[in-house]
Order: sequence, then structure tokens, then C-alpha cells
Amino acid sequence: MSTKRDNISLSVIRRLPRYHRFLHDLMLSGVTRISSRELSERMGLTASQIRQDLNCFGGFGQQGYGYIVEQLYDEISRILGVGNNLPTILLGAGNLGHAIASHMVFEDRGFHLIGIFDRDPKLQGQEINGIPISSGDCLEEFCKQNKPVVAILCLPRDAVFDIAKRLVEWGVEGFWNFSHFDLSLHFPNIVVENVHLGDSLLTLSYRVSEHRRQE
Amino acid sequence: MSTKRDNISLSVIRRLPRYHRFLHDLMLSGVTRISSRELSERMGLTASQIRQDLNCFGGFGQQGYGYIVEQLYDEISRILGVGNNLPTILLGAGNLGHAIASHMVFEDRGFHLIGIFDRDPKLQGQEINGIPISSGDCLEEFCKQNKPVVAILCLPRDAVFDIAKRLVEWGVEGFWNFSHFDLSLHFPNIVVENVHLGDSLLTLSYRVSEHRRQE
Repeated sequence: MSTKRDNISLSVIRRLPRYHRFLHDLMLSGVTRISSRELSERMGLTASQIRQDLNCFGGFGQQGYGYIVEQLYDEISRILGVGNNLPTILLGAGNLGHAIASHMVFEDRGFHLIGIFDRDPKLQGQEINGIPISSGDCLEEFCKQNKPVVAILCLPRDAVFDIAKRLVEWGVEGFWNFSHFDLSLHFPNIVVENVHLGDSLLTLSYRVSEHRRQE
Repeated sequence: MSTKRDNISLSVIRRLPRYHRFLHDLMLSGVTRISSRELSERMGLTASQIRQDLNCFGGFGQQGYGYIVEQLYDEISRILGVGNNLPTILLGAGNLGHAIASHMVFEDRGFHLIGIFDRDPKLQGQEINGIPISSGDCLEEFCKQNKPVVAILCLPRDAVFDIAKRLVEWGVEGFWNFSHFDLSLHFPNIVVENVHLGDSLLTLSYRVSEHRRQE
């Protein structure tokens, strides 16, 4: 299948995981083939939006025949790098970090969690999903030996810059950043995917307040 | 200060929490006044973007004088509804729900957490930040008495639709949705702010893989 991947906008990329979820659901409910019109109705998008998005990655589907669900799912999985198993470490095993490490299935999404680090001696030695929590002192040695590509940052804001700087020196190429620190400003060549929970809450606050004001 | 709030795009709204954070940092470091050019350099935006964004909410700042940091911060806080204390409940006190309830400071962001619910009897009676975890059986009665406006959903996907439907009947107007279920498709008139962690991970997977491919 031909793939033309250059210059795909981030907004298209961000829609792909949602296609991936919907296609997975379709497979589970036994649907083997679907038209872009049907898919669009289920997803609340226009059919032309769907055709446009999927065309960015080469031609899926056929006029008048629709998409073969499993084939499209597999192709999107491949594009998203689901099988890549990127070696990944998590920094900060407090409430949030602990929840992320135990809640997420990394292996289904392209990652392989290989280390967890926290500076709190009380946490060190505990395990999350079979992975021991280590002291930050071991981090450099660990990175040299195991070459993590991605780091998940569940650290207090003030700690983020220094540790991110070192991780980049030691070869980390991407951050899943839960701290309220704008890493991209300081590391323009590193991939940063932010989950700014506080920003999301404030947006919700605005939208609910507006909703109530308009009633 | 005049406020013209209609037809503000969601992309502008989503940038406001970030302004809020940056202005807060400026206040902490003792900066009292800042030009749109300086602010733009710190935030990695263009000065005209900043002027445009802030103009959506009425005229802040003055040509050649800049913004008074505290005044702009207070105004953005007000716009975002930071003081609104919307009564809020959290459903699902597993790993993720527990972390959200203990990690987030809701009161600084427009919310007041008043109840936590989980169907697991082992969790019921435990407290998070002084709030007891209750059985779902109490939910209807609780909603009638305490009228929560917002619900945080940290539930398994399969449970979400039924419970959201009931919550809407009982007066909930907004969801902070951590489940991988597209609520907005089913409740178009309710405010939904999603935190799809799995989608974020898949996006990161794609971007890191592309980054490595291009090196």
C-alpha cells in the first residue's frame, strides 16, 4: 500500500487515535466493511473529512465499496507505531505517576515501560506492574545501559527543566509531559506531548460557566 | 473593563489557561508590567497573536505601555471562572480517579469537589482529601441534595454511557471525561472536556517514530 507521509498536519495526526478506537470497536462488534458515510455518522465527522484524513497516508478504501475495517485498523496501527515498543521510563512515582504507570497499557500504544524513578526513598524498592521504583541517582547509568527513547514526566514543575536537559543529553527523544512546564520552548528539537490537566480543568471551567450564563 | 464574549473560538479559549500560568509566573518573579512583544517571546507566540487573543475579551493593555501583569491575570482568572466553585463529583476512585482526586487543586480552577463515588465496596468509606468514597447507590440522592454541576469520569468505558445519561437527568451540565468514550456524540448539549490519555500516547508514538525516521 503506498504511503505518502510528508507534511501531514498535526491536527490530522491527532484524529488518527480516534479512528483507531472506532475501528477497534467496529471489529469487536463484528463489522468487517464500512463506507466513509457510515463511519462519519458514527464519529460525528463529515464523510469528506474522513476521506481527506485517510488520503494523507495513501489510498485506503475504494469508491462505492468502503473500507475493510481490519485492514484500515492494521494500517493505522502501523502508522501510529503501535508495534514499536519504544523503551520508556517514568519519572516521579507520586499519586499521578503511580496511577499512570499502573493504569496505562503502554505495550498497546507503542511503548515499553522499562524503568520508574523517584527521589523519595520511601517509594524506592516498591514495584508498579513488576517494575521497581529506583532512585534518581541511578538514572544516568540506567540510560547508558538501556537507552530509553521516551520519558514520562510526572515531576513537580521546578524539577522538570534540569532533569529534561540531562535526559536529552543521555539520548531521550520524546517526552510525555504531565508537569505544567512548557518544555517545547526549551527543547525545540525534541518531541513533547503535553497532558496539562490544570489547563484542561480551566477550559472546562470557562465552558461550563458560559453554558450556564447562556441558559 | 468592557467584555465582548460572543463567538470566541475554542482555540482561543484553550490558550487562556497558558496565559494564566505565564502571568502567574511573572507575578511570582516580581514582574509588574510586560509588553506583548516580551510576553510573546517568553511564550513562543507572535505578539500579534497575543494582542488578537486578548482583544477577544475586550481591550487589555495600552499601545506603547504594555499589560499590567496582575490586572491581566485577575481578568483572565475571572473569564476562566476561577472563583466559581462549581460543585463537582468524581466517579471511579481506582488508580486514576484516586490520583486525580488527590493530585489536583480543584479550588484554584473553578471547582469544588464535594463527592467521590465507586462501586467497589473495598474503597467505600475510605477518604481522599477528607472526602469519603461512597457507593454509587447513593448517587441519585446525593445529586438531588447537593446539585453537582460537573462530574469527573474515571470509569471503565462500558460504564460511562449509562451513568452519564442519569447524571444529565439529575442536573449535571459538564463532564471532565477520562474514559475513552466519546460522550459529546451522545450528549451534544452538555459540555465535555476530554482527557484521552491513550490518544495522547498514540500521538506521541507517531511523532517520536517520525522523528527517528527523519534523523
